[in-house]
Amino acid sequence: MPVGLPISGNTILFALVGDPVRQAMLPTLFNPMLAEQGVDAVMLPVHAPQDRFDEVMRGLQAIGNVAGIAVTVPHKSSALAYADEITPAAEAIGAINALRRNPDGTWTGDNFDGRGFVAGLAASDIDPAGLTVTLVGTGGAGSALAVALLDAGVGTLRLYDRDTTKATEVAARVEQRSHGTVRVTDTLNLTGADLVINATPLGMHVDDPLPFDPTGLEPHAVVADIIMKPDQTPVMKRARELGYMVHPGLHMLTNQLDCYRKFFSNTLSAVGSSENQV
Amino acid sequence: MPVGLPISGNTILFALVGDPVRQAMLPTLFNPMLAEQGVDAVMLPVHAPQDRFDEVMRGLQAIGNVAGIAVTVPHKSSALAYADEITPAAEAIGAINALRRNPDGTWTGDNFDGRGFVAGLAASDIDPAGLTVTLVGTGGAGSALAVALLDAGVGTLRLYDRDTTKATEVAARVEQRSHGTVRVTDTLNLTGADLVINATPLGMHVDDPLPFDPTGLEPHAVVADIIMKPDQTPVMKRARELGYMVHPGLHMLTNQLDCYRKFFSNTLSAVGSSENQV
Repeated sequence: MPVGLPISGNTILFALVGDPVRQAMLPTLFNPMLAEQGVDAVMLPVHAPQDRFDEVMRGLQAIGNVAGIAVTVPHKSSALAYADEITPAAEAIGAINALRRNPDGTWTGDNFDGRGFVAGLAASDIDPAGLTVTLVGTGGAGSALAVALLDAGVGTLRLYDRDTTKATEVAARVEQRSHGTVRVTDTLNLTGADLVINATPLGMHVDDPLPFDPTGLEPHAVVADIIMKPDQTPVMKRARELGYMVHPGLHMLTNQLDCYRKFFSNTLSAVGSSENQV
Repeated sequence: MPVGLPISGNTILFALVGDPVRQAMLPTLFNPMLAEQGVDAVMLPVHAPQDRFDEVMRGLQAIGNVAGIAVTVPHKSSALAYADEITPAAEAIGAINALRRNPDGTWTGDNFDGRGFVAGLAASDIDPAGLTVTLVGTGGAGSALAVALLDAGVGTLRLYDRDTTKATEVAARVEQRSHGTVRVTDTLNLTGADLVINATPLGMHVDDPLPFDPTGLEPHAVVADIIMKPDQTPVMKRARELGYMVHPGLHMLTNQLDCYRKFFSNTLSAVGSSENQV
């Protein structure tokens, strides 16, 4: 059972903000990393109910020994308001999942979902360069994946969302970032896709309909999901039954741990100096 | 090295709010207790700078999985504003050092400093009943000690503060609680005292003057301090050199751990039910 360093008055805090937050894996995965590095810091689950998100964020940023804030569903877009500056990738995505306190007291935001997803593909020997990808769902996570997939050189990126306006907006934000082709489709187009990704929440609840039917995909096609719980979603089970390779959601998180670690590592000094010691 | 349970998305949070908070011992002492009881909860140091105290408190109370808040210097009086109800003892003290979330979402405040101090005396076989006590300093901690000492049956309680108005106010609040005599003294009166207590901050910094000179006390007199760092304050060193029994500040904290534990134990269900699980 992994355990952390003992918590004392000196311990630095990182918060993961979500609603709900119980199911979130980041504290479980990140705390052993901190302990292993001998950093006197902890990553805490922070349940920020939607209607109290602003109070929670203002409170966390006012706490002197909070060094960083990770953000999960449904707060990734709202969290933008708490960043003084964001990276160009986060700008294109329109959402952040990480905020860090700088030595001057300002906060920088970034988004690692897409980079984590692409790194997860690489770890499974899938190179997205030149591929035809159908991305289903263009919310916060979908936008992040779109940006990272274009940055990784996909050939054609098809964006599909039940809400076509949303998909069109995401396309407008991301398409100047690459030479790949971005297409918004009114109907789901899986024809010739090398990689099909579920970036909708469909599959978290047992009664959810499938986000798409993988029947008839190319034999070499990969079906990926970004849902972490359950670790095998219904669409993945169906794809597996049909003989397709599947790529579960947990890869996106495990492969962004290192992004979080690097992003947060240079904030520790910012916090260490914030308190006037008696 | 004491370690806690691993922190996950399910972990319940307790916060200790102070400015500064680095020197605070509560997280170090309380977390092993939680771990020993198998409670999936942690006590965190929360640095709430004076000018951001309200933001921090509003934020903590908005967080769904914060079950309780412990409060230390200088926030014990300001924290009253965040309690929907307080105990009669806390009312008499005019300050709280603990806040708990109730199942209906309201917050109850209490103050364990005095009870911890008296329990610490008992653990050192000192029964305050009938004693003549000089209490030096009538701020938040001093008020708490005054209430608990009267509840424990002291014979005469002399209150001294550089600011006599403050001592007079405290006397007015506490004296209807007991049959003991409460006297506010304009000048420090150590004559015939069985117990003299430093409840001022004097002794935390190396350059501080002594809060009082223990020379000439009765041979059986005890000199107590409530300062925890350093563990031996200059006035205690001086008293020891003169042959008096001394009673260090850490006793007050270690003997209120059990109060905190009981006070917080019935809040865990209040928090467990606050989050709508997906």
